[in-house]
Amino acid sequence: MAQKPKWVIEKEQSQRDADRATFWLFGLHAVRDALENPRRARHRLVVTKNAADKLASAIAGSGLEPEIADPRKFDVPLDPGSVHQGAALEVSALDWGPLERIVTEGQGTALFVLLDRVTDPHNVGAILRSAEVFGARAVIAPQRHSAPETGALAKTASGALERQPYLRVGNLGNTMENLRDMGVTLLGLDGEAEESVAEAAGALPGHALALVLGAEGPGLRERTRTLCDRLVRIEAAGGFGSLNVSNAAAVALYATRQGASR
Amino acid sequence: MAQKPKWVIEKEQSQRDADRATFWLFGLHAVRDALENPRRARHRLVVTKNAADKLASAIAGSGLEPEIADPRKFDVPLDPGSVHQGAALEVSALDWGPLERIVTEGQGTALFVLLDRVTDPHNVGAILRSAEVFGARAVIAPQRHSAPETGALAKTASGALERQPYLRVGNLGNTMENLRDMGVTLLGLDGEAEESVAEAAGALPGHALALVLGAEGPGLRERTRTLCDRLVRIEAAGGFGSLNVSNAAAVALYATRQGASR
Repeated sequence: MAQKPKWVIEKEQSQRDADRATFWLFGLHAVRDALENPRRARHRLVVTKNAADKLASAIAGSGLEPEIADPRKFDVPLDPGSVHQGAALEVSALDWGPLERIVTEGQGTALFVLLDRVTDPHNVGAILRSAEVFGARAVIAPQRHSAPETGALAKTASGALERQPYLRVGNLGNTMENLRDMGVTLLGLDGEAEESVAEAAGALPGHALALVLGAEGPGLRERTRTLCDRLVRIEAAGGFGSLNVSNAAAVALYATRQGASR
Repeated sequence: MAQKPKWVIEKEQSQRDADRATFWLFGLHAVRDALENPRRARHRLVVTKNAADKLASAIAGSGLEPEIADPRKFDVPLDPGSVHQGAALEVSALDWGPLERIVTEGQGTALFVLLDRVTDPHNVGAILRSAEVFGARAVIAPQRHSAPETGALAKTASGALERQPYLRVGNLGNTMENLRDMGVTLLGLDGEAEESVAEAAGALPGHALALVLGAEGPGLRERTRTLCDRLVRIEAAGGFGSLNVSNAAAVALYATRQGASR
């Protein structure tokens, strides 16, 4: 595969940055986390007097000029029912840089989570938390048919959105091939697989691994499944039921770390 | 502790049954699951012509007379935004019988999940699914400050609400003492604990165990913590972040089953 010249890559990257839509974070915790994250591009901060007091040190450190809003007329484009606690911050999605750098530069054994059409922001938010706790380098999803960074995702991610790389890529299949070329073994989660996650991880000590999860119901798409190196299942006790996708991701991450450390 | 006479217990039980409020299940899957569950007390079924066709065999088997509704005027008291797919069923909460029977009658090593003020129905729904997959005998929560059976809980439980015992008790502390009297060891989840879930389970092979989880943020209440036999943590990789409570429950259930089988 011919390498693109560096200037083309850089131009495409800056175009992607410009195209990146802004969105509103809301709630005291999410807004504070983003104000304290130097990597986060921030555009407008709308706060009530009360919230401004609570966020005083974060606001001062951010260098952003807050717009003080009347609590009875909090004019920010949020979904109805969003519990904003008088604080909203317009931001850009984070730029985590090229995947190549994330794969090659981290400490310890690399672990990734790939999401094939997992669209619910609450599930993706919970997965970002688990990825952080179990030390995954990045959560990767396709640009289309996945959950974009939004206030709802940030809220369920409970701070993890600011710290845990979440990459959305043009084509998940191509990214899987790139990861494999870089030495990452791709483990596809499949309830019908014979090998368990822990067995596979135990058989691949020290290997860089990626856990690939599909949406509930349809599971992995055919091409995604074909691109996996191994199909693995979560060892269950009963014959009934199925896990929520974020719970499956959490158990798979845990089982991978435990399996690899035996 | 003096035992209440049997007739008092029975009278109180029937009073509780009578008091049990009804609620509406909605969506094709949840309604079908409940129609096919002979233990589920069903009161009213409201369906569009289209949904009635899709549910025809479940409706026939249930013996319930459906009320056919115009899709443009679906007059059922559901939360706005509920995706009902033209099907709603008014039911009573399930009666799983006394805890004593669940503890003493099941197959295999008994495992329980106790929830101390976990109120989000989406989390409880996901926990019921994980409890079923990892073979827990029951999920137990206090009557107050927990998630009641509702349509939203049923939807996220994805069928598990019909099959997985979900008991709501008057006083969680008393239930913990009862469980201990019956020989169950109580493991309280606590991020600061020294022992891991898997280590504790490995040290107690064949023991009946209960995993006790608190709400995110406050964690276990003081009395709940004091009543636990051991405090245990989930072995993580990084020093940052925290798991969503349903993800913590799933990992703890998995770790318990794996730890006990070593």
